[in-house]
Amino acid sequence: MIYFDSDYMVGAHPTVLERLVATNALHTVGYGRDQFTADAKSIILEACGLSHGDVFLLEGGTQANAVVIDRLLDHNDGVIATDTAHINVHEAGAIESNGHKILTLPNHDGKLSAEDIKNYIADFYRDDTHHYMVRPGMVYVSYPTELGTIYSRKELEEIQSVCREYDIPLYLDGARMAYGLAAPEADMSLKDIASICDVFYIGGTKCGALFGEAVVTRRPELLPRFVSLIKLHGATLAKGRLLGVQFATLFTNGLYEKIGKHAVDMAMKLKDGFKAKGYPLYIDSPTNQQFFILPNEKIDSLRAIASFELWGPRGNSHTPVRFVTDWATTETDIDTLLANI
Amino acid sequence: MIYFDSDYMVGAHPTVLERLVATNALHTVGYGRDQFTADAKSIILEACGLSHGDVFLLEGGTQANAVVIDRLLDHNDGVIATDTAHINVHEAGAIESNGHKILTLPNHDGKLSAEDIKNYIADFYRDDTHHYMVRPGMVYVSYPTELGTIYSRKELEEIQSVCREYDIPLYLDGARMAYGLAAPEADMSLKDIASICDVFYIGGTKCGALFGEAVVTRRPELLPRFVSLIKLHGATLAKGRLLGVQFATLFTNGLYEKIGKHAVDMAMKLKDGFKAKGYPLYIDSPTNQQFFILPNEKIDSLRAIASFELWGPRGNSHTPVRFVTDWATTETDIDTLLANI
Amino acid sequence: MIYFDSDYMVGAHPTVLERLVATNALHTVGYGRDQFTADAKSIILEACGLSHGDVFLLEGGTQANAVVIDRLLDHNDGVIATDTAHINVHEAGAIESNGHKILTLPNHDGKLSAEDIKNYIADFYRDDTHHYMVRPGMVYVSYPTELGTIYSRKELEEIQSVCREYDIPLYLDGARMAYGLAAPEADMSLKDIASICDVFYIGGTKCGALFGEAVVTRRPELLPRFVSLIKLHGATLAKGRLLGVQFATLFTNGLYEKIGKHAVDMAMKLKDGFKAKGYPLYIDSPTNQQFFILPNEKIDSLRAIASFELWGPRGNSHTPVRFVTDWATTETDIDTLLANI
Amino acid sequence: MIYFDSDYMVGAHPTVLERLVATNALHTVGYGRDQFTADAKSIILEACGLSHGDVFLLEGGTQANAVVIDRLLDHNDGVIATDTAHINVHEAGAIESNGHKILTLPNHDGKLSAEDIKNYIADFYRDDTHHYMVRPGMVYVSYPTELGTIYSRKELEEIQSVCREYDIPLYLDGARMAYGLAAPEADMSLKDIASICDVFYIGGTKCGALFGEAVVTRRPELLPRFVSLIKLHGATLAKGRLLGVQFATLFTNGLYEKIGKHAVDMAMKLKDGFKAKGYPLYIDSPTNQQFFILPNEKIDSLRAIASFELWGPRGNSHTPVRFVTDWATTETDIDTLLANI
Repeated sequence: MIYFDSDYMVGAHPTVLERLVATNALHTVGYGRDQFTADAKSIILEACGLSHGDVFLLEGGTQANAVVIDRLLDHNDGVIATDTAHINVHEAGAIESNGHKILTLPNHDGKLSAEDIKNYIADFYRDDTHHYMVRPGMVYVSYPTELGTIYSRKELEEIQSVCREYDIPLYLDGARMAYGLAAPEADMSLKDIASICDVFYIGGTKCGALFGEAVVTRRPELLPRFVSLIKLHGATLAKGRLLGVQFATLFTNGLYEKIGKHAVDMAMKLKDGFKAKGYPLYIDSPTNQQFFILPNEKIDSLRAIASFELWGPRGNSHTPVRFVTDWATTETDIDTLLANI
Repeated sequence: MIYFDSDYMVGAHPTVLERLVATNALHTVGYGRDQFTADAKSIILEACGLSHGDVFLLEGGTQANAVVIDRLLDHNDGVIATDTAHINVHEAGAIESNGHKILTLPNHDGKLSAEDIKNYIADFYRDDTHHYMVRPGMVYVSYPTELGTIYSRKELEEIQSVCREYDIPLYLDGARMAYGLAAPEADMSLKDIASICDVFYIGGTKCGALFGEAVVTRRPELLPRFVSLIKLHGATLAKGRLLGVQFATLFTNGLYEKIGKHAVDMAMKLKDGFKAKGYPLYIDSPTNQQFFILPNEKIDSLRAIASFELWGPRGNSHTPVRFVTDWATTETDIDTLLANI
Repeated sequence: MIYFDSDYMVGAHPTVLERLVATNALHTVGYGRDQFTADAKSIILEACGLSHGDVFLLEGGTQANAVVIDRLLDHNDGVIATDTAHINVHEAGAIESNGHKILTLPNHDGKLSAEDIKNYIADFYRDDTHHYMVRPGMVYVSYPTELGTIYSRKELEEIQSVCREYDIPLYLDGARMAYGLAAPEADMSLKDIASICDVFYIGGTKCGALFGEAVVTRRPELLPRFVSLIKLHGATLAKGRLLGVQFATLFTNGLYEKIGKHAVDMAMKLKDGFKAKGYPLYIDSPTNQQFFILPNEKIDSLRAIASFELWGPRGNSHTPVRFVTDWATTETDIDTLLANI
Repeated sequence: MIYFDSDYMVGAHPTVLERLVATNALHTVGYGRDQFTADAKSIILEACGLSHGDVFLLEGGTQANAVVIDRLLDHNDGVIATDTAHINVHEAGAIESNGHKILTLPNHDGKLSAEDIKNYIADFYRDDTHHYMVRPGMVYVSYPTELGTIYSRKELEEIQSVCREYDIPLYLDGARMAYGLAAPEADMSLKDIASICDVFYIGGTKCGALFGEAVVTRRPELLPRFVSLIKLHGATLAKGRLLGVQFATLFTNGLYEKIGKHAVDMAMKLKDGFKAKGYPLYIDSPTNQQFFILPNEKIDSLRAIASFELWGPRGNSHTPVRFVTDWATTETDIDTLLANI
């Protein structure tokens, strides 16, 4: 069986695992106050080109989103996101459980448009009744999006510009950041993202770590007493150095970039194969998630050798499907798959 | 330097780490729906002597407490606990952040007394004004307690009896369960605890795992839709099998018991050494945490070779201190320490 | 100046006020345990044709919605409502502040359709990923809606039928109930509504009371310990009898019906007048809110003699507006207004 | 029957009721944006000697406490209060339901001591573990306390001084403010309280209004976007002018002072009567709540003519009881009661 269900199906990249093994017997203080974590933070800040920022290491994406958004919003603020945003659809109401509404706008290939945001906020402030409504308090984007697409620098800067106009933070969910940075059409580096977004997180779980996400900000004043808030959310890892070790490794010797590039290379090869056979794209994704519309019989036969997800309800004759690659996907996996389509 | 600060200073027990390494490259489905997790649940249920129960694997103790208590309590219910309880003192308000009051009763060597609980609840229901007060909705105990002490079977059964009288669940926090079970004076097995408590968790983080806690219940109807609640709390691990692999290993070939026994053996040796030198106990703990009252000069000199915590503010001449052992503590560590006291 | 801004611009209906004055000096116990409140509950239950139900008197509509929905939903449940629903737009995030997502469906003239609800829920349960999504836990409708429209009995029964299929409660917000019941096209009585909905509230604030809403249920088991939850929400009125006196008066001698009928009569007269002059309706409402599309110059000139709300942003040449009548609107008010359009 | 159960057993003071009747038919805008409310705010600020402050009118005490405390505290902050504080005992967990822990200190005749507060906070900041604990984020006092006692100016200033040292706000619950100000031993005026506390509320419900509490602050920057937060808590009264009318009346022509003085005069007469008969005081209260320890037979016989509360569980031979006076208590009531003791 070849696995294309998701990018969290295997453990850690071997280099990451090696470091965990090598440091296992060392004694360190807990709760992320150790040297490994301090090192990881320095390395990440440097990779982000930030001299004054801060970094916090958390365990998972839903958790990172929940804690960051809970910190950035005031009581009756909401977060602007697309209707397809992960926080809106697949986090079991984590954001609302902390008291915050998600203010959804239509997605354009999975992305928010600066114009939609601007119109929404301008309309909100139209008259005084806004005091009795949910204030748009921040903007949430993801990179790549749920549909594998990525913002261009221009698109993200336009959103940043609206955020600045209304003095609200721009937050980017980078659960699959490695694959966005490695996309052929990407025109932003990690440093660009770090300088445009107020807060963002660099995904580890889906990009080579056992688990872990690194929340980064160039404006630490936006996350006051964040260490306490993380604890309050039950998100403080006792052996915090596990996160430090993993992220230090991912951001040493270009490992994170390599992981991203490999998976995207595999994804492009996969896409080319499907396109060559004439299967229509469900959406044209430049990253490690690939979406096609397949005949149902083809889906059924492929499932004998490969696992992958239906993207929505099964249609009468055709159904959209998703294939996901990661650092562990091999050329042989792709070749075998393509030989069967 | 020898480390006695806490029991989360090193990584995983080598046997646990080995299994993580051995299974790292395998593909599994996510979110704890994998076979490793299923196996761990079966093994744990068997170790607990439960045929009908359920098990949920979470990442940390504060998280486990928060999610379980959030599930067990109705809106304006509170949880009865000692004033020294971990949830009351060291979890940054996690329980309250989910809307629940902690109803504190005085501790007796770190423990609740059944009589105090009974009196408190009886007084609560004395008249109709209780509708405007916080209802005692469950009881929280820990095993061992924050002070290393353990409940006798009789003590725990008396508490269970009060809980049954008022039809509220008894929940046990077993962050250091291994060390409680291994205490020389312990008169309860894991099966006893599983049959007396409605819900409890078996600590992994402090007992040989990289991280992880196993929530166990013999009454699954008390935790409806718990999988969704875990996700809502940001506590779902994408690569859930990491927890499954670890717990399956801990509960195979008696590893969990061995870890507990070793640490407690080391702790007893340590206690005997301090007692032999005439240092008074701060409290007489039968588990892996040992508390003494030391002269301040002795504290200062010892710190050159060993790290450990002050247990409260530094006194004028003497201060209580805590030494914690774990699976990684060696006889040499203890000998070296004792040679210097 | 004639006032058509809203239906909460004057105090209480004179008959209600009289009773408050007449009972002012009496001593009663607090918190709604008095005889006036008991009487009001009996009278309301009888008016609703319920022999086994329960009634709770609260102070305002946002409060009633928040407390009821908080009670009806489990932790990660959401409430299905239209995008235009009051809870979704004009309650400052009260529902989310209690941890619950509003699951919006498109409105059809302000109303939910049973088919949309059914499709949404069926799709939700399509596969196992729903465990990580917000479960649709109840349905919220309002009667009349924000646009003044009302459900037919058939429409509401179809929604009830979907709710029963999935065993979730149907809740009706009756802030303007009096005007819905009095609509010429209404084919449901209060008893019908009480038998179709699981929980609903009868609006007092906008229908003749100083303030107050009566939450009614034919299934008291859906609102366990509701008295405590009301207190927890800060919604318990110390002098609870104020609500009892008002509701008992509203439901004695048909006052509530009279109030509704008068306001709707005035609204119909108003609508006829605008229609006769050729102004297009923004929506055809059979209740006390009337919506027209007026030329901007007409809006500006009318404002010299009457106050009313723009319904959305001012257009280039024309803008939708809303006129609201209530028990205090006089025929002279309408005549004067119509003489100026 | 004579009623001494509480101070919320009758309606509004006749002068307040008269104004409500006189203004009933007027049209005003809703939500507290009307002229009556604006006038009430000005009058209250003037009575408080504040030129820059702000005032918000709410419906009840538990609600006022919940909304204010929710605003003043950051996520994992707690509020310091006595163990006997209303928020700790009689508000059904309203504070915790908003996510905040109540940090209780022992009461001294119902009051907090500045020294206890100072020691608690100093100990909290002793070492770095405080990041994982609940931060003391404000201080809550009540005036008078639950036991009818009042702070001296010196006591309150000492508490203020500790609050300033740690830069946390001092909040005063004045549910029975009128009776505290009127106490013979009171050495603070309303202006003093307004200048010492950061935020406080002036009780209306128990002091002559139908309902209502006025939150006052000399530091409006402490309550940003408070109008929205009030709405989010379901605490916005549609006909907000009802609160404006009442408070404007209470603070015109010294009515609030008169109400306080009358009730306290009656209470002193009542206390003198009991003392003259040799009944011991449970506590020596200078305000409208009086506490005695009575023989159980006396309690039983008195209940034939008067209603009052037991203050705790019934004792074997004697039980503490509470008698409460208000604006409606007459000299005849007191004479009749005393004739029977």
